[in-house]
Amino acid sequence: MEGVDHLALERSKTQFDVDQMKVVWAGSRHALDVSDRIGRLVASDPVFKKDNRAMLSRKDLFKDTLRKAAHVWKRINELKLTEEEASRLRFFIDQPSYMDLHWGMFIPVIKGSGTEEQQKKWLPIAYKMQIIGCYAQTELGHGSNVQGLETTATFDPKTDEFVINSPTLTSSKWWPGGLGKVSTHAVVFARLITDGQDHGVNGFIVQLRSLDDHLPLPGVTVGDIGMKFGSGAYNSMDNGVLRFDHVRIPRDQMLMRVSQVTREGKVVLSNVPRQLLYGTMVFVRQTIVADASSALSRAVCIATRYSAVRRQFGSNDSGVETQVIDYKTQQSRLFPLLASAYAFRFVGEWLKWLYTDVTQKLQANDFSTLPEAHACTAGLKSLTTSATADAIEECRKLCGGHGYLSSSGLPELFAVYIPACTYEGDNIVLLLQVARFLMKTVSQLPSGKKPVGTTSYMGRAEQLLQSRSNVQKAEDWLKPSVILEAFEARAMRMSVACAKDLSKFANPEEGFAELSPNLVDAAVAHCQLIVVSKFIEKLQQDIPGKGVKEQLQILCNVYALFLVHKHLGDFLSTGSITAKQASLANDQLRSLYSQVRPNAIALVDAFNYTDHYLSSILGRYDGNVYAKLYEEAWKDPLNDTVVPEGYREYIQPLLKQQLRNARL
Amino acid sequence: MEGVDHLALERSKTQFDVDQMKVVWAGSRHALDVSDRIGRLVASDPVFKKDNRAMLSRKDLFKDTLRKAAHVWKRINELKLTEEEASRLRFFIDQPSYMDLHWGMFIPVIKGSGTEEQQKKWLPIAYKMQIIGCYAQTELGHGSNVQGLETTATFDPKTDEFVINSPTLTSSKWWPGGLGKVSTHAVVFARLITDGQDHGVNGFIVQLRSLDDHLPLPGVTVGDIGMKFGSGAYNSMDNGVLRFDHVRIPRDQMLMRVSQVTREGKVVLSNVPRQLLYGTMVFVRQTIVADASSALSRAVCIATRYSAVRRQFGSNDSGVETQVIDYKTQQSRLFPLLASAYAFRFVGEWLKWLYTDVTQKLQANDFSTLPEAHACTAGLKSLTTSATADAIEECRKLCGGHGYLSSSGLPELFAVYIPACTYEGDNIVLLLQVARFLMKTVSQLPSGKKPVGTTSYMGRAEQLLQSRSNVQKAEDWLKPSVILEAFEARAMRMSVACAKDLSKFANPEEGFAELSPNLVDAAVAHCQLIVVSKFIEKLQQDIPGKGVKEQLQILCNVYALFLVHKHLGDFLSTGSITAKQASLANDQLRSLYSQVRPNAIALVDAFNYTDHYLSSILGRYDGNVYAKLYEEAWKDPLNDTVVPEGYREYIQPLLKQQLRNARL
Ligand SMILES: Cc1cc2nc3c(=O)[nH]c(=O)nc-3n(C[C@H](O)[C@H](O)[C@H](O)COP(=O)(O)OP(=O)(O)OC[C@H]3O[C@@H](n4cnc5c(N)ncnc54)[C@H](O)[C@@H]3O)c2cc1C
Ligand SMILES: Cc1cc2nc3c(=O)[nH]c(=O)nc-3n(C[C@H](O)[C@H](O)[C@H](O)COP(=O)(O)OP(=O)(O)OC[C@H]3O[C@@H](n4cnc5c(N)ncnc54)[C@H](O)[C@@H]3O)c2cc1C
Repeated sequence: MEGVDHLALERSKTQFDVDQMKVVWAGSRHALDVSDRIGRLVASDPVFKKDNRAMLSRKDLFKDTLRKAAHVWKRINELKLTEEEASRLRFFIDQPSYMDLHWGMFIPVIKGSGTEEQQKKWLPIAYKMQIIGCYAQTELGHGSNVQGLETTATFDPKTDEFVINSPTLTSSKWWPGGLGKVSTHAVVFARLITDGQDHGVNGFIVQLRSLDDHLPLPGVTVGDIGMKFGSGAYNSMDNGVLRFDHVRIPRDQMLMRVSQVTREGKVVLSNVPRQLLYGTMVFVRQTIVADASSALSRAVCIATRYSAVRRQFGSNDSGVETQVIDYKTQQSRLFPLLASAYAFRFVGEWLKWLYTDVTQKLQANDFSTLPEAHACTAGLKSLTTSATADAIEECRKLCGGHGYLSSSGLPELFAVYIPACTYEGDNIVLLLQVARFLMKTVSQLPSGKKPVGTTSYMGRAEQLLQSRSNVQKAEDWLKPSVILEAFEARAMRMSVACAKDLSKFANPEEGFAELSPNLVDAAVAHCQLIVVSKFIEKLQQDIPGKGVKEQLQILCNVYALFLVHKHLGDFLSTGSITAKQASLANDQLRSLYSQVRPNAIALVDAFNYTDHYLSSILGRYDGNVYAKLYEEAWKDPLNDTVVPEGYREYIQPLLKQQLRNARL
Repeated sequence: MEGVDHLALERSKTQFDVDQMKVVWAGSRHALDVSDRIGRLVASDPVFKKDNRAMLSRKDLFKDTLRKAAHVWKRINELKLTEEEASRLRFFIDQPSYMDLHWGMFIPVIKGSGTEEQQKKWLPIAYKMQIIGCYAQTELGHGSNVQGLETTATFDPKTDEFVINSPTLTSSKWWPGGLGKVSTHAVVFARLITDGQDHGVNGFIVQLRSLDDHLPLPGVTVGDIGMKFGSGAYNSMDNGVLRFDHVRIPRDQMLMRVSQVTREGKVVLSNVPRQLLYGTMVFVRQTIVADASSALSRAVCIATRYSAVRRQFGSNDSGVETQVIDYKTQQSRLFPLLASAYAFRFVGEWLKWLYTDVTQKLQANDFSTLPEAHACTAGLKSLTTSATADAIEECRKLCGGHGYLSSSGLPELFAVYIPACTYEGDNIVLLLQVARFLMKTVSQLPSGKKPVGTTSYMGRAEQLLQSRSNVQKAEDWLKPSVILEAFEARAMRMSVACAKDLSKFANPEEGFAELSPNLVDAAVAHCQLIVVSKFIEKLQQDIPGKGVKEQLQILCNVYALFLVHKHLGDFLSTGSITAKQASLANDQLRSLYSQVRPNAIALVDAFNYTDHYLSSILGRYDGNVYAKLYEEAWKDPLNDTVVPEGYREYIQPLLKQQLRNARL
């Protein structure tokens, strides 16, 4: 951050304690310190350079990724990093690799579904990376519908082994990250077959490659599935294809925490309830929500800084043009995204707590909150990833033409981020699960069953179906109780309306299918309520630092009122608010934007991102955009020569032609 | 299209004459024939292969583009193609190149802004491509605000020349397509300065490169601005940077149709009114709307076919799983986009007519409809490009995980399409122009000035501010008059509400700035009304072919009712419809989806796209998705070797390590 700070004037206008806001964003002073230290470490290490990534060929990019991953591991060990530090290090590298799946899926699934014995055997070597594992569930023909997987694992009592096989083309494993070129092992999901009977899908630890020479073991066909969206981006990952031709593994490599196959080939359930496996899902989805706030805040940081640098039209007294961040349209597109970044950060933090809570309850054999926790994480995964994907692209558009350059950082961020809407559950499929849970909850209300956790508002159904918002003037919309009531009324009424419509169908499944678009809308309303209410809860905590809480209060209101505007149809058609009240909400929103404006740069500075992590010329901390864009352009390979390759064959002949016959 | 047709069953369910629909889509039997013939020609020519585009390095991609462009030109001449055929040929190549700017901007701007003499001099050599030109307006520091451009063209009466200069870093030309590596000439926009006086921005024809060796002329610095969004995509284009160090051009290279500089350096206006220049804008934006329907229909074609191939969950009587296109959520996301493709096609066709109409009126010195036509094309450019960009990404999501593969065709389509939201006017800036026009129109109503063209509904302001929709049952929503009234009432009321709010401000400009987000919403409402009403008008024509009109009727209703659902807040808050009526619209929409369902595949077949043009495995005509995906994967360079490059340096050492110190 050498040289002139082109954003110094902006920074001087800040009305709050940025350092304290950094603590809030990071989660704690300790977390901030770790993050700050590791962020700088990565930024200063030449191996971790990533600014030419978009220009690398697939092979070079992949090799670069292998190099980085090995270096990450080296640094972790050399510096004796803690688990927390190591995870921040992997985060700041900002280049997807087999490491993500090894640490993020392979190890957790063995922890979650392996017996103690299995954990003892596999985890130590996995922790030391003496084996590298991936998560092989999805097939060419089946993703969302896990129960439809076709790979088989047939028990052979003669040899006490399972025979893993890919009976059809569509049963080929397809997508698993780290599988294509790196993993030595995989947790493979396959239909368990014993004695001719199909016992459904289970996980199996299967070795794929020789630990000596990395060649696929006999019967294993494995490769990369090819280029994905964008340049750079997720192409650093070797998502793979995998086929088995009757590959044999010992019986004890089936993950047996929940159900076991005996020496005789009998399937017996252990005393561990199946629901326990949901724990892993809650864990993984919680990390996805955390990632959403990271990706979103990064995009918002870029767009906000550039919007303060960019000037276009108008002119104030000094004759300079207007900064585009001063246009209300720009604010109305950008500030809600800034607010969303904070909202998702806090709901992510809360989900982390929820995971701990659920884990503790599971250990105490208390499963009462599990369905609610499961629905809640599914819904929040869907909500935050969809919103983030859209927001990144909106941030790119907010940067005008220059946002379309690779060097803006936004194209690659979009490309690398969007599959989060699809993996770990397609977002629509997840919302349908939430809706199913909501319909169940509503149907149980008459029986007096108390809804728990994030659905507890449904316990006040009668009140919420009747209530009228008592907003009279714009400022009333600043009250948390007013906001909560509107969101609760909307969510409640949409769920109840769906339930009513459903009851008109003789066949409930048919009804569910027919009404599914409405059910999705109801699920979204419920999830938005969760995010809003967790933001409000956060603000009930003690938050030190001059002006910090005030700023967060403003952002909370921006987030809520922006949603009211965006989903106005819901609020009005359910009668949760009136048109007049909606218009007051809009007025209030506009005035909130003016309050965000002077603090906008500081609010993105509080994310504490290094220029390395942002990898965006438009988002540079010092705002020195134009000189650096100009400098960067000349690095493109096309500029290696003044006259382009191909001139003699393809341009010169055109220019020199003597046309006779053309009609043009 | 060899082998089995996996979609044959789907095609057998079609309820309309697909061939006649193809005619409707193409515009005429003749247009269909041309398009069909040229499409096949391109598909069968090996030079035009594009399936490995995402894997090419920037340099190789660029060279490939030069090769294709030269081959296009060769074929056009060899086959003596007509202008129409040539333009289809360039379209089907589907690879952006300098040709697009040469034919689409350089030539039109000389036609529009050059004197007859200038046209005589420059057009013939441009038509023969003995020179290659681009359009150099945008600078590093100024895009939207053209009046803020900094490049100067100073008249030197001593030599009768203009001196073109780039006084600052931010005055560097930045973005012009075809500039970076190819163009020999450019129309450069610069501030005209004579005798120390600034006369604002004008266009100048400037030679950039030697016609002998392609080297930049003295004083010219030119290069490519670097990688853009995605792989393949728009990286085939050499968007350029350009700086002038006092480059001299003869006086007669200023485009002088509207204003002229005399030998003495006097600026005189010709008798041609400035508005004439708007004509070119209307022309260019009209082509952008046409491109929107092409890109959108292409994405929809891919997603629709794949949705019929893809099966997931459920099972009908035969035990096979449900095609995902049968899920109502899938339909509610996909079918409105299908309907939008048709809607945009028809409004594009109408815009073509509008352009002819405007041109004729201009020639007769009738400028009365120009502002309306200008606002209308600006608004429709904004509306259709924004909707198309979003829709392409939605289509990708509709394809689940496989949509994320390059081979789905959707990532590249998105990457290449999205800048349409930014170039030729940032979409928000354009909507603000539309809003300004609407406010002017509303303010003139009391004076009795009759609004023309697409604003003529505003002449019925009083009625529209009062009216109540008389929808009583779901089927009422099928009536064109009902739909039109709802859309007119909504648009009218939003404009009038804005006008009222504006009148509360002492300073109208301040009011406009403050209320700009609402003004943008009002502009969108107005533009959507135009699209809906042009679709309805289209249906008033005679449309032959069994079932063709019926299908279009259904799509028209889907488009309109989908918008009602999406913008329900507008319709309800303005009181244009009631909540009950909205719910009936929703019911009707669901039943329309069921009517679209059996015809979905045929409706995308009617676009008559070759597999070459689609370049999508998921969108293949024959639906043979899985075998081809599997085949394609192995072509990735990463699969050249079984063990990846870098294994020895970066993977093996990990696996073989003896860890001692790690805390993990
Ligand atoms: C980058 C990336 C990384 C991945 N990594 C891994 C990995 O490491 N390991 C692994 O095993 N897998 C991985 N996957 C696969 C991923 O988990 C699946 O793609 C995902 O589960 C979605 O399934 P699908 O692709 O089958 O989508 P589909 O289910 O085929 O979705 C297609 C469409 O059908 C709709 N649909 C499907 N079912 C229903 C329904 N019941 N009701 C209504 N609509 C429905 C969807 O909404 C969607 O619009 C990865 C995928 C990607 C893109
Ligand atoms: C792929 C591509 C090809 C191009 N080809 C060419 C070419 O051939 N020739 C050429 O000359 N140019 C070309 N351009 C440049 C293009 O025309 C400009 O990028 C475009 O006009 C937008 O201007 P901008 O980049 O300055 O955006 P900006 O105006 O800087 O936009 C940044 C943000 O500010 C907002 N904003 C700006 N002004 C206002 C306002 N008054 N009120 C409210 N909000 C405002 C915008 O909405 C946007 O969110 C190309 C651009 C691209 C991306």
